[in-house]
Amino acid sequence: MNYEKLLSRRTGDMGPSAIREILKVVSQPGMVSLAGGIPSPESFPMDRIKELTNLVIDKYGSAAFQYDLTEGFTPLRESLSRYLEKRGIIASTEDIIVQTGSQGVLDAIGMSLISEGDKIAVEAPTYLGAIQAFRPYQPSFVRVEMDEKGMIPESLDETLKKHQIKFVYTVPTFQNPTGRSISLERRKRIAEIITEHDALMIEDDPYSNLRYTGEALPAVKTFAPDNVIYITTLSKVLAPGLRIGVCVAPAEIRKWLIIVKQGIDLHTSTFSQALAAEYIAGGYLDEQLPRIIELYRPRHAAMMNALEKYFPSWFRFSRPEGGMFIWAESDAHVDSEEIYRKAVKNNVAFVPGKYFYTQPGQGLATMRLNFTMAVYSVENGQ
Amino acid sequence: MNYEKLLSRRTGDMGPSAIREILKVVSQPGMVSLAGGIPSPESFPMDRIKELTNLVIDKYGSAAFQYDLTEGFTPLRESLSRYLEKRGIIASTEDIIVQTGSQGVLDAIGMSLISEGDKIAVEAPTYLGAIQAFRPYQPSFVRVEMDEKGMIPESLDETLKKHQIKFVYTVPTFQNPTGRSISLERRKRIAEIITEHDALMIEDDPYSNLRYTGEALPAVKTFAPDNVIYITTLSKVLAPGLRIGVCVAPAEIRKWLIIVKQGIDLHTSTFSQALAAEYIAGGYLDEQLPRIIELYRPRHAAMMNALEKYFPSWFRFSRPEGGMFIWAESDAHVDSEEIYRKAVKNNVAFVPGKYFYTQPGQGLATMRLNFTMAVYSVENGQ
Repeated sequence: MNYEKLLSRRTGDMGPSAIREILKVVSQPGMVSLAGGIPSPESFPMDRIKELTNLVIDKYGSAAFQYDLTEGFTPLRESLSRYLEKRGIIASTEDIIVQTGSQGVLDAIGMSLISEGDKIAVEAPTYLGAIQAFRPYQPSFVRVEMDEKGMIPESLDETLKKHQIKFVYTVPTFQNPTGRSISLERRKRIAEIITEHDALMIEDDPYSNLRYTGEALPAVKTFAPDNVIYITTLSKVLAPGLRIGVCVAPAEIRKWLIIVKQGIDLHTSTFSQALAAEYIAGGYLDEQLPRIIELYRPRHAAMMNALEKYFPSWFRFSRPEGGMFIWAESDAHVDSEEIYRKAVKNNVAFVPGKYFYTQPGQGLATMRLNFTMAVYSVENGQ
Repeated sequence: MNYEKLLSRRTGDMGPSAIREILKVVSQPGMVSLAGGIPSPESFPMDRIKELTNLVIDKYGSAAFQYDLTEGFTPLRESLSRYLEKRGIIASTEDIIVQTGSQGVLDAIGMSLISEGDKIAVEAPTYLGAIQAFRPYQPSFVRVEMDEKGMIPESLDETLKKHQIKFVYTVPTFQNPTGRSISLERRKRIAEIITEHDALMIEDDPYSNLRYTGEALPAVKTFAPDNVIYITTLSKVLAPGLRIGVCVAPAEIRKWLIIVKQGIDLHTSTFSQALAAEYIAGGYLDEQLPRIIELYRPRHAAMMNALEKYFPSWFRFSRPEGGMFIWAESDAHVDSEEIYRKAVKNNVAFVPGKYFYTQPGQGLATMRLNFTMAVYSVENGQ
């Protein structure tokens, strides 16, 4: 039959993913990959996980395998409430929604908030998964400028003055792809700006726990709780295969996120959630985090040192204090996709930075370099 | 801040779910509930699950907790290929996508295929979860008539002649909510009709394995493989909390379903998928199915007998040979919501049938009666 006629108008915007093709190349044997965005499997506490899966089955029995609440498994939301409090996020059990990965949170936000043609403000560059989640709801993207200290408050202010913005999306700490963090001073100023403009911000925070040097930065949400939807995930601090994303949203928006999630996937895997609940409640996340940091710290240092030593002087690079990525860029007229092709021939891969921009032609001379896992064998993880 | 201005236009169509409110009432202690749609927890093979979670961790190690392919965990897709073959569905590993519940399949279909205003043909009544999945993509629903033998081919033919239909959605076997099945003869005729019209059908098949009497019916897809997207789930034959939905679609559509799934949730829980893979590969699903059937058969018989004996003669009811539901309806001018209110006062709950129609005012004198689990304590499961 003729299938082409069946596709929705929105799918016309979604070409096959070039980055997906890159990540396929990367999984070839012998490749040293700086292209991934996935945690090292050594960071997964397999013995503890095994012990806890048995505990979960004994403790919750069939309830861990039954249909459950759309908003999430109650014991996990209770554990998360205490976990988030340590990060300065005050959220009761009821305030928290568990979704299928932070990707699931982003999709539900897109479905509930974005009408065709709405303007979404994003950093340039920004997280590719967010673009993929929002694009099917047909927004247009507006660029907010950033520099080494993250999003520039004056650019945000101008953007909110000039455009009717549905929401501002940011990864304020150890951003994917740049590794940059918004400074404390700027966080406070950004909170003032969104409050003044009565604007909504989506604060996506997967990496802030992975800090190797420097001082912790408070979440933007702590400065403007009513104007921020805070998102985090257990993918980088426990295991991505569990697909646990976490969302703290103002009550009025939360209500809509739950309704759309009923249609999207009804609820997230109960078994995954029960395992995560026991992991956090047992104090094992707090116990494991320093080990993960110790695992990544030397890799972070090794890449920083190698870049200082071997990188051409006409390339600048970011100096993140944590996370998973370093960003390199140049003012030279060079397309990093060409560098990528040459690198792959020498069994080294990375992601050309242009894929993290919403407009074609931007970021040609940029590259994203991952240091948490230089060997890579599956194609996902962005 | 003012949140109302933030909601997308599509969310205007999604009121708070009345059925969700009903299912909350149902979870009150002492309630005999015929309202749910959830499997009995006695059907979950807990000892086997415990054994296999340990096996999965030993066998796959960290790979069961890592990011994985969007289309699904390869060993599960291999197991499903063999499992589906027994049902007459010829699908290679590559042909199969695993999604987050069959709800996840329906959402991905909605996102990839439905443009605003597209017409979707559905049985009246139809599965509520499908309406919830499709509605955010703003289709209009066109009604296809059904009777005791399921969807009426002549009505389908007329509908496809009269309207430009994006796809036809059906639950052909032990339909939710009616329990009705499309007869063998009609399946063949329906396959001819959709082929003649070059039309796409979504065949949602969660229940066909739960047959208590009578002869197995082949899937519609077996008669028109190129025109049918076949969906099934492990929720009714293993455990819904794993959130494993399965989709076999023509290659051209499958490609789009995978791309949209990247944006929706990247992939489904690897751990859940690995557990399901070992469960099917070990032959345990084939072993457990007869036990589940033996568990439900007397409940099915008990409800059929009770309806014969106690139900008022002015109510007809369906006589399904399997599944989870019986449908009762009357020509009298009675609103079953009134009956529902009286029943709840007497600690008995069911779902008024009107919620399974896409148009208000339809099915007022109908009710859906579940017999797999008369005691119920969580609110989901439709």
